[in-house]
Formats: sequence, structure tokens, C-alpha cells
Amino acid sequence: AVHGTQKMEDYGRFLALLVSALLVGFVSVIFSLVWVFHYSEGLSWDGGLGEFNWHPVLIITGFVFIQGIAIIVYRLPWTWKCSKLLMKFIHAGLNTIAMILAIVSMVAVFEYHNARNIPNMYSLHSWIGLTAVIFYSLQLVLGFAVFLLPFAPVPLRAALMPIHVYSGLTIFATVIATALMGITEKLIFSLKNPSYSASPPEATFVNCLGLLLVIFGALILWMASRQHWKRPSEENVKVLRPIGGIPEGTEAESTMTDGSNADKSDLRINSEAARKQNLKLDEAGQRSTM
Amino acid sequence: AVHGTQKMEDYGRFLALLVSALLVGFVSVIFSLVWVFHYSEGLSWDGGLGEFNWHPVLIITGFVFIQGIAIIVYRLPWTWKCSKLLMKFIHAGLNTIAMILAIVSMVAVFEYHNARNIPNMYSLHSWIGLTAVIFYSLQLVLGFAVFLLPFAPVPLRAALMPIHVYSGLTIFATVIATALMGITEKLIFSLKNPSYSASPPEATFVNCLGLLLVIFGALILWMASRQHWKRPSEENVKVLRPIGGIPEGTEAESTMTDGSNADKSDLRINSEAARKQNLKLDEAGQRSTM
Repeated sequence: AVHGTQKMEDYGRFLALLVSALLVGFVSVIFSLVWVFHYSEGLSWDGGLGEFNWHPVLIITGFVFIQGIAIIVYRLPWTWKCSKLLMKFIHAGLNTIAMILAIVSMVAVFEYHNARNIPNMYSLHSWIGLTAVIFYSLQLVLGFAVFLLPFAPVPLRAALMPIHVYSGLTIFATVIATALMGITEKLIFSLKNPSYSASPPEATFVNCLGLLLVIFGALILWMASRQHWKRPSEENVKVLRPIGGIPEGTEAESTMTDGSNADKSDLRINSEAARKQNLKLDEAGQRSTM
Repeated sequence: AVHGTQKMEDYGRFLALLVSALLVGFVSVIFSLVWVFHYSEGLSWDGGLGEFNWHPVLIITGFVFIQGIAIIVYRLPWTWKCSKLLMKFIHAGLNTIAMILAIVSMVAVFEYHNARNIPNMYSLHSWIGLTAVIFYSLQLVLGFAVFLLPFAPVPLRAALMPIHVYSGLTIFATVIATALMGITEKLIFSLKNPSYSASPPEATFVNCLGLLLVIFGALILWMASRQHWKRPSEENVKVLRPIGGIPEGTEAESTMTDGSNADKSDLRINSEAARKQNLKLDEAGQRSTM
């Protein structure tokens, strides 16, 4: 009974964090819309400010909010009864949407710059932002090839999973840092009379948007880095191979071919055994540690 | 023998990353000095640009480089034979130095702003930067009270350790993001003819400094988040208390009173047992997971 109460408490804590993250992310998107509609010329696609404005809106909606949700989608307890394959598709799908929105948002800036004869790619914001988009695309392609397609051998999946998780979280943090640089640039360039340093309402409002992005990132990183909120491994398809005295193993779900949900019905019963198994995997450093 | 070779390889990998991080961090500090001496008016303490220049130099030296080293100081394998208490003092000491340098660097900016009648605390950079310094100070005081002073009970230490690790890494990432915003601001404000968008040598040089800071952060986060590079727990002073069926426990070194090194001589022999113990702690979510 004590055990059960602790589990419920932990579930409640997860839910509270999830709701907070969704709320902060949602409010950030609303703030970006208020910024461009109330303080600027709204949205359009004509080489003017309205086209530039797609940049913050799509970055915050796609590259921050949707990417954040994609990161924690495996953590949602009510999805643990769904097949891992389905969850992988949702994870990959959300990340693909985020990537497309990020690319469209970059096109908007390039077109805006070209229409106004402003140079491209001179700022630290643009350098790190483009690097983040390139790494994000690589991560997506590599993740698809290794974890979704059924060809990669288990040891390769096991070796790449910690790197996949680490680069995912590092890219996510870098994207938020890049958004903060973008906000800084934009406020300095667009606020002239009164200037940014005079703290007009737009400055204070968009600074708050920046704070919200940091809070959103911190919430996602906390949820993603709690080991005990991890989706339980699927015991029935687990492989354990001892090498040189160190138990080495990994999740070996046959992704593309794993279509049935029937064999997941005993997941709850197996979860205790699965957890013990995970600990062995942790020991071998094969499971993610972030 | 295979086991041993794997351990050596892993050790080599750790060393390679450590050397890379030290190199990138050191080059960043050099870059900050070149920036202020070659492209600006050097260092002074007279309310002029020379006083402002302490800000980037001290932030990059203290708040980025020294903080980064403080984060991974427990990971250095040759310190595992030192007492945990000594390592805690080094960790706390480096963080204290970083905090002092960060505060001095903030004083430099405030004095510079006041001398030139530039408003303080209007930018997103200043908002997030000050928030980071406040959280960093709280983290230091709380860490000292809970993990260094001998008064905190073991369950409290166990409950706070994952939070300590998480906030440490999140603050570190936020500090780097803030530095990137600071670089962006400074280049826009100081480059006038030619402007930042014309990519003069200073712009390109300082953009590279920004990239180095991101690489340094990424290296530190990788080293800090590998579970198998963790300092082995000290078995001889371990406490394990089962609560509600979940094994709960933590490292219970008697910090302030743990002065002798003699009882550490059997650390290597115990390390396998200690590792098994750690797994139980991982299960209870008591050990850090980032």
C-alpha cells in the first residue's frame, strides 16, 4: 500500500510537471503571436516585416514547443500500453514537423534579408542556429535509419542510443539559447524610439517570452532526465549478451515489424523484471543516462 | 583481459574528452583576452570601456571555464583515491571562485553603465544573467549546508542530490546561453563602422568565441552525464534503508568528519559491490540521473 501511494504521488508529480510544461509552452506560442500581431505588422509572405515575423512564431511553435513535446513523448505513462513502434513514429513525426517549421522559418528570414539587402549569416545567432538545424536534421535521419528501420543490429542501436539522447537534449538546449540570441538581436534592431534600453512595453513583454522559453526548457530537461519516469523496457523482446564479464544488452524490439499490440498486455506484470533488467543495462552504460 | 582492455579504452576516451574540454576552455579564455586587448581598450577599473571589458573576461574565465571544471571534478579517475570530503571542498571551492568572479564581472558592468548613464537590467541578457547568478548562489549555499556540513540527515541528502545535479547542469547551460546573448549585444553595440552585419574581423573572431563556448558546454555535459564515469561510491560508509518495498539508500559519507584516507585503500576491491549498490540507488531514483 505504501508502495502504491508512492507511485501515485510520483504520477501526480509527473502530471503536474507535464501540465506546467504544456502551459508554459502554449503561453510562449501565444506570446510570440502577440509580439508579431500587437507590436509588429503581423504575418504575411511578401518580403516585408510580416514575412520575417514567421521566423519567431515558427521557431517557438516548432523548434521549441513541438521539439520539447517530442522529447518527452515516451515518458507519458498512458502511452506505455501502446507499441514502442507507434511511439517511435510519433517521436519521429513530431521532430519532422519541428524540422520543417524550422526550415520554413529560416527561408522567411533569408527572403526578408534579401528583399532588404541585409547580409545573411553574419551573426552568432545565425551561425549557431544553422548549426543546430543541420545537427537536428542529421539526428533525425540517423535516428530514423538506426532506430526505426529494422536493419541496424542490436549492438549498434545500444551503442548509439546514449549518443542519440545526449545530442537530442544538447540540440534542444542550443535551440533555446539561439532563440534567446534572436530575441536579443530583434529587440535591439527594431526598438529605436524608444530604444531597448528605455524598456518600452514591447521590450518587457518579449523579455518575459525569453524567460518562458528558459522555464520550458528547464521543465523538459527535468522530465527527460528522470530515470524512473522512463518507459519500461519490453522484457519479452530483450537480449542480454555478456561480453568480457560486463553484462551488455539493450532493447531489441523489432521496430518496423512490431505491429501487434497483443504481446504488450503482460507489460505491467513484467515491469518489475524489466526494471531489474534496465539496471543491468545501466551498468553497461548501454541505456541513456541523461 | 578483455575487460581490462575495455576499461583502458574507456579511460583513454575520458582523457581525450577532458583534454579537449580543457583546450577549448583555455582557448576561449585566450579569445576573450584577445577580444578586449586587440579589439578594445584592454582592462582597467575607471568606469570606461576597460572596466566593462572585465565582464566578458571574468564571465568566460570564471562562470564558464571554472564552473565547467568544477562540474566534472568528481569524474577525474586519479581523484578517486582522495577522500570524498577533499573532492567536495575542491568542487565547492571552484564554484565559490566562479561565483566571486561572476559577481565582480557584474559590478564592472553596473559601474560602466552608471558612469555612462546607460540603464541597468533592461535586457533579456541581464534578466537571465542575474537570475542565473542568484540560482548559482542559492545552489552553492544549499550545497554547502546539505552536502558539506555534517548536519543534514542521509534521506535529505539523497532526496536533494538529483536536484543538485540537475540544477547545476541547467544553470551551467543557462550561463552559456547568457554569454551568447551578451556577445550578440556587445557586437551589435560596439561595431558601428563597419557594422556587425558587414562581418569585420572582430565580428568573425568573437562569433568563433561563441562557438567555442557552445563546444565547451557540450563537452562538459557529455562527461557529466555518463553514469559509468562516475566516482565509485564508498561502500564502507553506505546505508541502505528499505522503505515500502523500494530499496532506498544513498552515499552516507560523514563529510566534515571524514578526514582519513586509510579506509579508502580497499576502494578498488569494493568497487564491483559498490557498482551493484549504485544500481539499487538508481532504481530508487536516489542517485543523480543526469
